[in-house]
Amino acid sequence: MSESERRAALIEEHAPLLERAIEAVRTRESWSPFKDSPSTKIHGAEKPKAGRAAFEARLGGRFEIDQPGIVGWTGEEVSPFTQEPLGIDYPLCDPQALIGAAKSAMAGWAKAEPALRTALCVEMAERLYDRNFEMANAVMHVAGQSYTQAYSGSGPNALDRGLEALAYASIAMDAVAPAGTYHRHFAGERVALEKSYAMVPRGLGLVICCASFPTWNAYPAMFASLATGNPVIVKPHPIAVLPMAIVVETCREVLSDYGFDPNLVTLAVDSLADPVAGVYVDHPAVQIIDFTGSPRYGGRLERTVTGKLLYTETAGVNSVVMESVGDLREAARAVARATCLFSAQMCTSPQVVYVPRSGVQTADGHVGFDAVAEAIVAEIDAIAGNPKMAAGIMGAVQGAVSLDVVAEAEAMAARERLSILRHATPYDHPDYPDARTLTPLVISATPEEKEMYAEERFGPVLFIVAAEDGDAAAGEAVELARTRGTIACYMYSTDDDFIDRWVDAYAEAGANLTINLTGAMWINFAAAYSDYHVTGLNPAGNACLTDLSFVASRFRIAQRRRPIPDAA
Amino acid sequence: MSESERRAALIEEHAPLLERAIEAVRTRESWSPFKDSPSTKIHGAEKPKAGRAAFEARLGGRFEIDQPGIVGWTGEEVSPFTQEPLGIDYPLCDPQALIGAAKSAMAGWAKAEPALRTALCVEMAERLYDRNFEMANAVMHVAGQSYTQAYSGSGPNALDRGLEALAYASIAMDAVAPAGTYHRHFAGERVALEKSYAMVPRGLGLVICCASFPTWNAYPAMFASLATGNPVIVKPHPIAVLPMAIVVETCREVLSDYGFDPNLVTLAVDSLADPVAGVYVDHPAVQIIDFTGSPRYGGRLERTVTGKLLYTETAGVNSVVMESVGDLREAARAVARATCLFSAQMCTSPQVVYVPRSGVQTADGHVGFDAVAEAIVAEIDAIAGNPKMAAGIMGAVQGAVSLDVVAEAEAMAARERLSILRHATPYDHPDYPDARTLTPLVISATPEEKEMYAEERFGPVLFIVAAEDGDAAAGEAVELARTRGTIACYMYSTDDDFIDRWVDAYAEAGANLTINLTGAMWINFAAAYSDYHVTGLNPAGNACLTDLSFVASRFRIAQRRRPIPDAA
Repeated sequence: MSESERRAALIEEHAPLLERAIEAVRTRESWSPFKDSPSTKIHGAEKPKAGRAAFEARLGGRFEIDQPGIVGWTGEEVSPFTQEPLGIDYPLCDPQALIGAAKSAMAGWAKAEPALRTALCVEMAERLYDRNFEMANAVMHVAGQSYTQAYSGSGPNALDRGLEALAYASIAMDAVAPAGTYHRHFAGERVALEKSYAMVPRGLGLVICCASFPTWNAYPAMFASLATGNPVIVKPHPIAVLPMAIVVETCREVLSDYGFDPNLVTLAVDSLADPVAGVYVDHPAVQIIDFTGSPRYGGRLERTVTGKLLYTETAGVNSVVMESVGDLREAARAVARATCLFSAQMCTSPQVVYVPRSGVQTADGHVGFDAVAEAIVAEIDAIAGNPKMAAGIMGAVQGAVSLDVVAEAEAMAARERLSILRHATPYDHPDYPDARTLTPLVISATPEEKEMYAEERFGPVLFIVAAEDGDAAAGEAVELARTRGTIACYMYSTDDDFIDRWVDAYAEAGANLTINLTGAMWINFAAAYSDYHVTGLNPAGNACLTDLSFVASRFRIAQRRRPIPDAA
Repeated sequence: MSESERRAALIEEHAPLLERAIEAVRTRESWSPFKDSPSTKIHGAEKPKAGRAAFEARLGGRFEIDQPGIVGWTGEEVSPFTQEPLGIDYPLCDPQALIGAAKSAMAGWAKAEPALRTALCVEMAERLYDRNFEMANAVMHVAGQSYTQAYSGSGPNALDRGLEALAYASIAMDAVAPAGTYHRHFAGERVALEKSYAMVPRGLGLVICCASFPTWNAYPAMFASLATGNPVIVKPHPIAVLPMAIVVETCREVLSDYGFDPNLVTLAVDSLADPVAGVYVDHPAVQIIDFTGSPRYGGRLERTVTGKLLYTETAGVNSVVMESVGDLREAARAVARATCLFSAQMCTSPQVVYVPRSGVQTADGHVGFDAVAEAIVAEIDAIAGNPKMAAGIMGAVQGAVSLDVVAEAEAMAARERLSILRHATPYDHPDYPDARTLTPLVISATPEEKEMYAEERFGPVLFIVAAEDGDAAAGEAVELARTRGTIACYMYSTDDDFIDRWVDAYAEAGANLTINLTGAMWINFAAAYSDYHVTGLNPAGNACLTDLSFVASRFRIAQRRRPIPDAA
């Protein structure tokens, strides 16, 4: 096949998947082209082994990427499971060289038809899925996610977010007619014009990835920019480069395979001591910035970047309001599981549980505040006390800084004479004896200690706050969302009037709300195509994964018009 | 009928029009529900008279608007046709009162269904069309547009831009499913969730209007914000308040008629001495800013506003490249008419005409540079020398500042010993002997004088520049577009290879290009639904009238989800 035939075949091959994704974002149903379980029943025994071997083969060597402007090699990743350096070095590139290469690559990419660009992105997603056991090992050993979570959350669930962004990019681009004819009379004269409307990419896209969950936000950002014609420079966090190096390698391979310049996707590695993001942020060729990471740096970007597109997801303080429950144990378990998942290093992890100080009504009668708190602690203990379960749910703590965060919270609680309901202790990881683990610290507080629990703490810390009553609890939760930001809020109530009274206030504060969810589904699981992630209405971020506004400005429209020759 | 029945009836009444507008933006064909000629054959003899009478009844009195926080009355409008003050005073309001009132009004508006909000906007447009003879007189006597142009350009053509924005707002909101159900197995357990997705308006919209063409940008901005649930505060230019006061009055009337708080649309008047825009720009409740006006203030907003949506249209330097032509006189007339229209006080007026210094090929043989320039001047003279035609095309010069701009250009040309091909002289307006009129100054220049012609000059100044050759001309035009901004570029060439060689470069510079257009249609006429206005890719503005990106971020999505009761 010629290159143009291969490109046409690729468009045809991936069109049904894209159509299906577009249908899914319209219905908001559950759908994925991928399997998000690493089970050997699905994948066989070989793929997991090969993936692990591929990861291990990387250790202690150079991760070669044939990028321009390589000026050195660097790497400072340490596995949270072994606390040993991975020893992988990545190419350190001159930003001007990567920017120059991306600019050169852009013209050909901008000219490629949108359907081809989206098909190539689907191809990237499918090849990444094919490498997902390697990816799972990589994510585990830079971020600390458990094997299962790394496989699903950083694999299919993240790839689905990418396809979701592709679906919206397709919708936005399909809304632009490539051409039209215009017939009108002016002063009795018949005028006939042919018009064409070119989609012009905005410019270079910079994707700044977070350390704990790098692929999840990177895929939608990368695919949204690429599909709309913009090259992408990926700036991984220096302690979590490997997953993004694998992504960049795969994307470049797909681009090359179909005759495009691989420098449409490059990796901008830096070090903790010598960060490089600012150079890209400030460069005039960089016109789109997708940032995921700390509120500190994200907030600085939000306050200083002008004249460019900026999409941020930072963090907030997520709350649970437990006003009344059917089955207390079920609700307590749901909250405990969300608190334990990845040791609360997720943007959807709860940090504050509001419980009326007089306690809650349950199907089994009234239960006091202390008993509610005890129920939550008991469910956390049940996980923490079972090393196999703890390993599967909590994984490891990525950075020593999170240990400090928890230690400071515990010290502060002691100083302020708050009741510590549960101490943060490590658990013994069954496979990795040197893993940096930590089970949740649980502190009992009252609204008077608001300044303590309303501050975002990135690590396993849970405050159970005795609110005046249910309405006061919801009012505080909404205020917290509005002022400190939130990505996920949770509510338990058997009183529909109570729920109805508060849902609008949550929405106005930009808080996505999960109500009365218990059982096997993680309450902080956000499903691509069905769940919007981040509203952009509070300090937790200005963008949403994914809606039309995430993609519609990444390209512009330039038109031309001229008389139709024979219509005069 | 009850209020809810009346609202439902309004949705039903206006749905076909909105559907038709959506079809038009998809096909990009010529369409309008309005007639853009003021002819009495269409409208009868009474409406024009009544419109003029309504305008005259306003003179010398207070324009009452029942807004909160009125602290005084002010007005400093002067008719460019009579050079007499209009004597109309408008309510001067405390910004905090208008902001507070808009915030109070917002909750009810946010809860209204999108179809009702869009129907109310259509109703506003139709009532404004009904008042369009009054509007035409108002626009004439604040902006200086001719009667015909004020009727069409500031009436139906502008209202069409508003409906176009409504069409895109509808498309963007229709893309959000209000609810969905989610079924998936987790760990063997069947999970069924009901989800709902609320569109949450972003916040208060501030619409800062320009002085010379206030309604044209205001309608799309207002309707885009209103349709998506945001209140709007209209900040007119202090020398061109009346048209926007009429708009605000009409919108408030429609809102009141259907049981909504009229303070969803208010008028923030200020004075030249005491500008108020900054107070609104800086207020945290104001989340959307639509600005049309000077590059100086617009640029400042672009460089300083963060954390809010900002849509700007400022100005650029529009060019014509005349590489070769079929009929020189036709092309020269097209350029001359565009230069004369509203005395070049339009964002689409050409300022620079590039002609190869060796001249151009025409159907009648080769014509030298000087002869091309003379042909353009002759066509300007033909308009300027016919007072009735001049009045219909040029109208009046809005501000004395534009006289200064032209005088400075003429003095500079003399100082630099450039050849002045045509002096800027007033013409005698047949109806208004005191009208401030000015016909175009035409200067011959070479690329060495780039700094002179590449600076935006808001007034009737045309530079005819002797380029090295056609390619050099187009190269300069593209560079001018990229660096100084442009809203409309024009090209004349009989050589398709030449055209093909340059169209992509124009598009990349964000220059909308009109090729070989002559005849009755104004080459700088931009038709809503068919022509995109401003690309956002160069310094002439960051937004486009109208595309999805103009509307898609004006609302956000907040979701909630809970188990489906009977599905356990």
